[in-house]
Amino acid sequence: MSTMTETHVPAGAVAAGAKSPQPAPAPTYEGDFVLGDHLLLDCGRVLVRPTLHYAVYGRLDAARANAVLVCHALSGSAQVGSWWPELFAPGGTLSLESDCVICINLLGSCYGSTGPGSLDPETGGAYGPDFPLVSIRDNVRAQARLIDSLGIKKLRLVLGGSIGGMQALEWAIFEPERVERAAIIAVAPLSAMGIALNHLQRTAIQQDPEWADGHYLPQHQPQRGLALARQIAMLSYKSAPLFDERFGRNPNRNGEDPRGLDDQGGGLIAGRFDIGGYLDYQGRRFVDRFDANAYLAILRTMETWDPLHGHASPQEAFGGIRARLNFVGISSDWLFPPGSVREFAYTIRAAGVQAEYREMDSDHGHDAFLAEQAALASLLA
Amino acid sequence: MSTMTETHVPAGAVAAGAKSPQPAPAPTYEGDFVLGDHLLLDCGRVLVRPTLHYAVYGRLDAARANAVLVCHALSGSAQVGSWWPELFAPGGTLSLESDCVICINLLGSCYGSTGPGSLDPETGGAYGPDFPLVSIRDNVRAQARLIDSLGIKKLRLVLGGSIGGMQALEWAIFEPERVERAAIIAVAPLSAMGIALNHLQRTAIQQDPEWADGHYLPQHQPQRGLALARQIAMLSYKSAPLFDERFGRNPNRNGEDPRGLDDQGGGLIAGRFDIGGYLDYQGRRFVDRFDANAYLAILRTMETWDPLHGHASPQEAFGGIRARLNFVGISSDWLFPPGSVREFAYTIRAAGVQAEYREMDSDHGHDAFLAEQAALASLLA
Repeated sequence: MSTMTETHVPAGAVAAGAKSPQPAPAPTYEGDFVLGDHLLLDCGRVLVRPTLHYAVYGRLDAARANAVLVCHALSGSAQVGSWWPELFAPGGTLSLESDCVICINLLGSCYGSTGPGSLDPETGGAYGPDFPLVSIRDNVRAQARLIDSLGIKKLRLVLGGSIGGMQALEWAIFEPERVERAAIIAVAPLSAMGIALNHLQRTAIQQDPEWADGHYLPQHQPQRGLALARQIAMLSYKSAPLFDERFGRNPNRNGEDPRGLDDQGGGLIAGRFDIGGYLDYQGRRFVDRFDANAYLAILRTMETWDPLHGHASPQEAFGGIRARLNFVGISSDWLFPPGSVREFAYTIRAAGVQAEYREMDSDHGHDAFLAEQAALASLLA
Repeated sequence: MSTMTETHVPAGAVAAGAKSPQPAPAPTYEGDFVLGDHLLLDCGRVLVRPTLHYAVYGRLDAARANAVLVCHALSGSAQVGSWWPELFAPGGTLSLESDCVICINLLGSCYGSTGPGSLDPETGGAYGPDFPLVSIRDNVRAQARLIDSLGIKKLRLVLGGSIGGMQALEWAIFEPERVERAAIIAVAPLSAMGIALNHLQRTAIQQDPEWADGHYLPQHQPQRGLALARQIAMLSYKSAPLFDERFGRNPNRNGEDPRGLDDQGGGLIAGRFDIGGYLDYQGRRFVDRFDANAYLAILRTMETWDPLHGHASPQEAFGGIRARLNFVGISSDWLFPPGSVREFAYTIRAAGVQAEYREMDSDHGHDAFLAEQAALASLLA
């Protein structure tokens, strides 16, 4: 709400990758794959000839046996080289020499794959708020078609954090013969607190008059609602100790005074603390790169994922997995608390699956899988 | 955003006091005290002849030496009998036979004391968004005048949770000769995460077009923004384990289906989970009983409180305290984490003050001081 000059530049590693020592590798190929027919969704609706946008790093070997699939999180893109550069460092998880790394944009997103902003071939208009619920499994189903089209029989590794980890596990469940190993980072079925956080983010967007029941024009999206949603999410991506260390109780770095006489004409419109300036900056930055309906779509994809749902037992849900599973929890993560990741891993192991759990000690909260990439890479080694 | 029939009745003890075995005692007296002159505030502005609304339970003894002051939290009122009934149970913290219990509504509130909805004698109109920042110490200064007017020299006990605890400690600092004992529950200076939560609540209110820069009419307050603010706050008042136990991943109890085909015409407007229905219910309930500008005013009072601010040392800030201090932290509180309450208590003790720390083991989160009153009473005994 402030009209003051904005000078809030995020401090150091708070911006994920900001101090990465590893230059972002460029994709060998980036393009679209269009399914030739309908994709029947778990919810009962169909997507007509949906597009998957994807990027490839490195090259397939002659046997097409060196493919690695990386799955991205809520607001990520197919360009894994840009957001996970340190995993490509020498000795890291991914190798441009020996791996062919593929990353596919989620359905529902606004980074190239079919989403609410795409044209619905059946109506000729954008899907908008009528975009259907696409499950994690629906995504895996579509991704498998793309992997088929590349002539790849088996994936050496499928990995991802957060919603990316949901996809990695779902790959191991849905395509048991095609996955050698899956790394599932900072994720479990979303808890009630996680669903609550999603619910409030959805409310923030839908209460913005610019949302217009989802029928906004792309150039007039509900910026303030989306920014608030992002800010609510940021709390859940970070940790209280990190915020205390970075921002403490400091006034905003542009000189506003939360305690003093108000210089903006009103007693209730306060000068901000530093954490407030930071959050406002993050919210503003986000609306320039993301679409509100896409955000709503992926929240649904995320919160409805529960591979145990509809099964009589963990054995029934997970017993067919053949891949080795590496679960990683993050000590300060309160969106997907390490205890719930560990419990999830042990439930799956009890179903007879090779599953191990490791914990990353970090103050960065859920975001640690993006903010502390080198530590993650050594944990995955 | 749902238009479905609402059947969400809060489950059991989630509604504070809902299953209280102790009938709420009625006040012996409830009324207003008007300061005869200006109250000069820490921020430099004045409140002209402000009103304090207060309630009294039990009676003063002849020596006026049996007074206990209870301080309320953000959305509380002077009617402590209604929101803390079990503390009046036989053998509890408060006794209608031997104590004269006084509770005073915070300045800035909408429950009788001067706040944004009150008339500013200098302009003849409501303060509205021009209501000044009233500090915790300003409140204590005004409360001391009321206590003076009752002929009370010394308080046997001052106690409160959350913002109430801020007042209790500030009484011990500001009026060292007048407080025998202070009980300070689930509070410390607000952390960066706490300030962040306040910031987003403020944003939610100020983004509601009905807020109208604070100049809304009382019958047209920004209900949706205030409801969202309340819902954000609810997350911080409760705990993840409590939410898991109460709501889990269940669909909303009115039969909405978060996973199925959408029956509301749009793919992005999902059926809610149970936690979503609960939060919506809490938000709606709150706007019927609270005012948005009052909420904004007390957020500022809360977040600007830091008794160490402006002092060279804890010794300088706290060394003058003569009261015995009882700090209580709540094991599952993530708004005021028990570690920060303990550290705060030990900092004060290191300044030579009689301060002890106890921890309440509860899954209720910050709200435990309202939701588990019997346990609190036995901890304070």
